[in-house]
Amino acid sequence: MLVGKTHYKTIWREGHTVKLIDQTLLPFRFSIAQYSDYRGLCMAIRNMNIRGAGAIGAAAGYAMALAFAEAQMNHKPTFVLDAKKEIESTRPTARNLFFATEKVWESGKKGAAAAFSEADRLAAENEDAARAIGEYGMALMFDGISVNTHCNAGWLGFVDWGSALAPVFMAHRRGMKVYVYVDETRPRLQGARLTAWELENEGIAHTILPDHAGAWLFRNKKVDLILTGADRIAMNGDVANKIGTFEKAIVAKAMGIPFYVAAPLSTFDPDCSHGDLIPIEHRDEGEVLRISGIKNHRLIEDITIANPRSHAINPAFDVTPASLITGLITEQGIIEPKEHLIKTLFDTPKT
Amino acid sequence: MLVGKTHYKTIWREGHTVKLIDQTLLPFRFSIAQYSDYRGLCMAIRNMNIRGAGAIGAAAGYAMALAFAEAQMNHKPTFVLDAKKEIESTRPTARNLFFATEKVWESGKKGAAAAFSEADRLAAENEDAARAIGEYGMALMFDGISVNTHCNAGWLGFVDWGSALAPVFMAHRRGMKVYVYVDETRPRLQGARLTAWELENEGIAHTILPDHAGAWLFRNKKVDLILTGADRIAMNGDVANKIGTFEKAIVAKAMGIPFYVAAPLSTFDPDCSHGDLIPIEHRDEGEVLRISGIKNHRLIEDITIANPRSHAINPAFDVTPASLITGLITEQGIIEPKEHLIKTLFDTPKT
Repeated sequence: MLVGKTHYKTIWREGHTVKLIDQTLLPFRFSIAQYSDYRGLCMAIRNMNIRGAGAIGAAAGYAMALAFAEAQMNHKPTFVLDAKKEIESTRPTARNLFFATEKVWESGKKGAAAAFSEADRLAAENEDAARAIGEYGMALMFDGISVNTHCNAGWLGFVDWGSALAPVFMAHRRGMKVYVYVDETRPRLQGARLTAWELENEGIAHTILPDHAGAWLFRNKKVDLILTGADRIAMNGDVANKIGTFEKAIVAKAMGIPFYVAAPLSTFDPDCSHGDLIPIEHRDEGEVLRISGIKNHRLIEDITIANPRSHAINPAFDVTPASLITGLITEQGIIEPKEHLIKTLFDTPKT
Repeated sequence: MLVGKTHYKTIWREGHTVKLIDQTLLPFRFSIAQYSDYRGLCMAIRNMNIRGAGAIGAAAGYAMALAFAEAQMNHKPTFVLDAKKEIESTRPTARNLFFATEKVWESGKKGAAAAFSEADRLAAENEDAARAIGEYGMALMFDGISVNTHCNAGWLGFVDWGSALAPVFMAHRRGMKVYVYVDETRPRLQGARLTAWELENEGIAHTILPDHAGAWLFRNKKVDLILTGADRIAMNGDVANKIGTFEKAIVAKAMGIPFYVAAPLSTFDPDCSHGDLIPIEHRDEGEVLRISGIKNHRLIEDITIANPRSHAINPAFDVTPASLITGLITEQGIIEPKEHLIKTLFDTPKT
């Protein structure tokens, strides 16, 4: 995708070095971070230097591959297994993370080179899946459409293209007029910071709004479609995604707005029969109570914005029941969120 | 109410000077602002140095009285009428503002002294109404209750006690255990800043959470009751209140949580038959895109927190239809939000 006029991917590899766009500094600084050890990359995942379901998966695959490379210089027999556990503890809700570590773990048994090429393959697969989601999602797009999205499920959340925003980017590139209402997405403001920045760079018209203005928006403005991503999807179609998605889906249902979730197959968890079984990550209360931003071109961190002697709860995700979701957009097409249809996705041989 | 261990009111008069707690600096600085001319007080209302339905009403009454006093030194015949229009243009949604300017306008015909005493009477009435709302609201409270509230409808939003929080304060003072989940309330964070600060000062257990975590909260924690205030109530029971109230009411209905709105009669608009007729104030996009806070005990303002080249929409209020509201708590009792019951409130002679 475009940054200024240059094409970038979210994460890539150069030899034994993994490079990524540092999302904690966006949109204020465009900066490439690089990691040559798995622990550094783990920290990057945990601290959200890289975030978003697909991008976390790609990063976890690379972290696993780095661990295999590092093991060659480390004689502790459990080094790689310990590394796997450490990578998997960074973001417990993200299904793609576990999908990627398992795949690279298997390949790594044939050596570090095989681990790196599996991690590369997963990153490429992630990008291909996002592009296919965009193509299938085009069935929902039309000239003059208004879309509402929550959090960032754009190209920064994947290796490229994104999930929820892939059809938006594609429609725009094919000359359709698209308008996007971007939920700011407290507490980390991924909407106001990342989605808005992506849309600006692609030249797509958009407006940021407070998260809980959704009902007002649907009542007062033309909104044709809600598109969100997912961090884990249970086999019955329940979706774990950024906090606020569940609330938005309830409001969408009540007000008759179609609500679609876009995600690749690697986000579906075959071992998870329904949403109540998805572990929900709780993050530090400081994300709610303090904020960072810029003033006079200087980055200022840890600004207290709430009553200093109060506490906060900060669930990073919630679970939206399948009954509230109009459809799931996958790299194999759009389906209703029903168990027998989801199972079919996994039966279909890949082309 | 208590600030540290001292009792305060939100706004009061000393001769021809009106003093108020500056809410834009809370919870970081406790500071008293004072105004001796109506224009200064208008600016304070517009900039939200004083805010909240009841407090705006009291401030508008005092502003109108100041205008009558100033008119004695000003020979322009339309001075007071112009002042009235200026006061009424500060916050278009707040019903209490128009209620107060009308009342003081009528009294002022008998001179500035009469205007001041009418403004005093309105402020006292506001406090009495809030206390009565607390008493009637006690019917909903019990030992061990968990309440969720949006924005600040506590004592800072009135002259004292508050609307939604009046029953909470009263229950706590009478020895009941009360827990409050406080929506942070973007963009101005009245929940995280003002409500949390009030609750801390009264020693009431509470937690701040992102606004759109409501559905997660109701699904995962014990929440017995939602209490909000109102900025204007139509005669059919539709309620204009802080942006996000409409969304919360939809979610509450879907999840079976009782949703009560607390407001004095001065918030009801006899000239407004239903919610669609309530004018909704749109505030500057900068409230969404920039923020203030403290770092190392220094107040820092105008920190950019969103993509600097994106825009935002900032509706300050939304309208919740009566059908989503369990009950209205007024100084005359709790009623269902039905037109014939609301009309009865206005027929009852005041004691």
